[in-house]
Amino acid sequence: MAAQTPHQGDRSTVPAAAAVSRRRVLAATGIAGVAGLAAAGGAVARDAFAQDAAPAADAVAFRGAHQAGIVTAAQDRLHFAAFDVVTRDRDHLVALLRQWTAAAARMTAGQAAGGSGAVGGPAQAPPEDTGEALDLPPAQLTLTVGFGASLFRDAAGRDRFGIAAHLPPALAPLPHFPGDQLRPELSGGDLCVQACANDPQVAVHAIRNLARIGFGTVSLRWSQLGFGRTSATTRAQSTPRNLMGFKDGTANLRAEDGALLEEQLWVQPGDGPQWLAGGTYLVSRKIKMLVETWDRTSLAEQEAIFGRTKGSGAPLTGRDEFDRPDFAATGADGRPVIAPEAHVRLAHPDQHGGARMLRRGYHFVDGSDGLGRMDAGLFFLAFQRDPRRQFVPVQRALARSDVLNEYIRHVGSAVFACPPGVRDAGDHWGRTLFG
Amino acid sequence: MAAQTPHQGDRSTVPAAAAVSRRRVLAATGIAGVAGLAAAGGAVARDAFAQDAAPAADAVAFRGAHQAGIVTAAQDRLHFAAFDVVTRDRDHLVALLRQWTAAAARMTAGQAAGGSGAVGGPAQAPPEDTGEALDLPPAQLTLTVGFGASLFRDAAGRDRFGIAAHLPPALAPLPHFPGDQLRPELSGGDLCVQACANDPQVAVHAIRNLARIGFGTVSLRWSQLGFGRTSATTRAQSTPRNLMGFKDGTANLRAEDGALLEEQLWVQPGDGPQWLAGGTYLVSRKIKMLVETWDRTSLAEQEAIFGRTKGSGAPLTGRDEFDRPDFAATGADGRPVIAPEAHVRLAHPDQHGGARMLRRGYHFVDGSDGLGRMDAGLFFLAFQRDPRRQFVPVQRALARSDVLNEYIRHVGSAVFACPPGVRDAGDHWGRTLFG
Repeated sequence: MAAQTPHQGDRSTVPAAAAVSRRRVLAATGIAGVAGLAAAGGAVARDAFAQDAAPAADAVAFRGAHQAGIVTAAQDRLHFAAFDVVTRDRDHLVALLRQWTAAAARMTAGQAAGGSGAVGGPAQAPPEDTGEALDLPPAQLTLTVGFGASLFRDAAGRDRFGIAAHLPPALAPLPHFPGDQLRPELSGGDLCVQACANDPQVAVHAIRNLARIGFGTVSLRWSQLGFGRTSATTRAQSTPRNLMGFKDGTANLRAEDGALLEEQLWVQPGDGPQWLAGGTYLVSRKIKMLVETWDRTSLAEQEAIFGRTKGSGAPLTGRDEFDRPDFAATGADGRPVIAPEAHVRLAHPDQHGGARMLRRGYHFVDGSDGLGRMDAGLFFLAFQRDPRRQFVPVQRALARSDVLNEYIRHVGSAVFACPPGVRDAGDHWGRTLFG
Repeated sequence: MAAQTPHQGDRSTVPAAAAVSRRRVLAATGIAGVAGLAAAGGAVARDAFAQDAAPAADAVAFRGAHQAGIVTAAQDRLHFAAFDVVTRDRDHLVALLRQWTAAAARMTAGQAAGGSGAVGGPAQAPPEDTGEALDLPPAQLTLTVGFGASLFRDAAGRDRFGIAAHLPPALAPLPHFPGDQLRPELSGGDLCVQACANDPQVAVHAIRNLARIGFGTVSLRWSQLGFGRTSATTRAQSTPRNLMGFKDGTANLRAEDGALLEEQLWVQPGDGPQWLAGGTYLVSRKIKMLVETWDRTSLAEQEAIFGRTKGSGAPLTGRDEFDRPDFAATGADGRPVIAPEAHVRLAHPDQHGGARMLRRGYHFVDGSDGLGRMDAGLFFLAFQRDPRRQFVPVQRALARSDVLNEYIRHVGSAVFACPPGVRDAGDHWGRTLFG
């Protein structure tokens, strides 16, 4: 384990040779357009941005049966954005989804974002890429899109874009859970884009350029930066620790789980609207942790709350992290070794008809809260086939009984339906939904 | 250049073998203390945290004539924290500085933070480390301390801890600059700690554990997470790009600058209070960028504003990034090629009697602003021998004339005096100031 920490493992996958691929060929034009520039100092030399066709060795394939960024080995950094659609014009929205798809294909390959026109416009036009990732490799960037229920019907129940009939029943709003302190400005959204990469600048650049391309059609509703993935999505990754210091997500669905992924992760053809077959649902929850309070709790109590040891992550009834918890075991005092309200028991698939999720969350630290405390916690992301049978019952059990609730606050929440993957160059993120 | 992007260069320096050093030896105690635990489920196995003595190959030396984290090759991630001292007792404050120094020495070596007592307390006690960095290497963590003017005198001018006579004149409050929109809750502070590392989890863990150790003596005033260093502090690092997409800090002071560092960076024995000789001053400014507005500005105008090309970073009068700008050159139209108000001209050392700084800032993205825009920008950090002769005149020129001001807002500000380095195991951060 010493040779593969969760973070180090990700970083070592970025080969230096890939760094060339985002870089544009400099082609000085000698005299640039000067139309609007006299006041700013006259003629300037400039770079013409031309694409370099070199393949990018640390790029994740953008196209496929499923969207990338779900079973993809979890990258180390996140920029997640929820957007509101501000146009009423269905054609504008579909055109944007086409433009976004093209930009996502380019950026995940380490190329410039582009925009509504060709890459490398005239000097008087805004650049077709914001430029801050010019010298950076793809860094395993993935961009994953999702559609919120509010895209289908507005608050008054009106069909916004002629797709209300395609609203999946499983995209229903989450119920109120005990203890929820949700803030509207951190919740919901018509569209979401999850940008994951091993370099935060690459993830931020991607969201920023999608927002730039979407100007006038969508507006950023909320966004979240995350670091230090809090889950492993392949067997090659070790289980990381949450900000409470515990290994978290030991029972996570992983890329190698084969038939179980069809059962638990991917929407099947018979599940509901056809447009979502091969897709999945994403639940996001912004969970603040009262870390200062937690840090003054005894180690033994922390371990009793989780039902696992802090060092190895083993259940209190076992020796190794992946040992199966023995919920029936009792101690010398006759009490269960793993308490009835221990987190590992409440969240265990055995308690929920085998319900599993593919968690893909990140830590967040948003500075401090003005009261001398860190504004920090877990930005929880979980993909699943049907939130009504997976996230909702698990969270209901946790919200009711989990002793962890003394140390956490759910402040943001959203659910999105993530369409299947983009198949070929003519395909786009909105095809299966909008036709 | 292709083989060494700023980010990749940093990442490749973390050898996998170092990952062992923060990891504790698991020593199951069989039966743990159960005093307060009956209600939580009875006896639990637990790890005893013992220190592993293996050397950490990616650790930065904590002790030396100067503090680490200044000329140290700029790491890729930042967690910066400003604290208010909440005790009135000088002895408590000095004791905390001793504890912090010991914890900083441990954490920068990849070990557990410790606390007021020995590492590995009884099960009923809070853990002596919060644990979320248990499996992570040192990641070149540096911890750099600074003292604000408010530590010396309170707002009423009273000597708080018997050190008012040692207040350096150069630690004077910054003047108000045109356009400043400073928020008190993002400004000032009695103490600061700059945590830099190549893994954000390591930097966050360090600040969190210092805050934990300081509970009751200090209170977190504000903090800032940063990513993607915006400066190069050694010749081995290439100049990174700011969030406007331009290479920034081409003229930065660097570790190799020898005598120039004595002239421009380190406080000299004759400069003022003796306790600060070998130290330096740190100016922090939180600078929001109106990135959406910038992104709709033409490439030619962006380049005219900076006075540099966006692609290579060359001055508009040159071909390569490090070409000396020719401020006298005029174009065919008789106007200066580099405009009178171009950023590169206003900030150039030639305009300020050769004044240079060691910049060490980071990007920030704090989500969005509720108006559909990213809450993003530059967390500017600059070390210097005397802000009155370096930061202040440069910023005055920029605040007065820089066309960039249309695209940025200064919202946070602070100045700290950073003492010299900790020399040996008996030394501590407060020794030269408090004796």
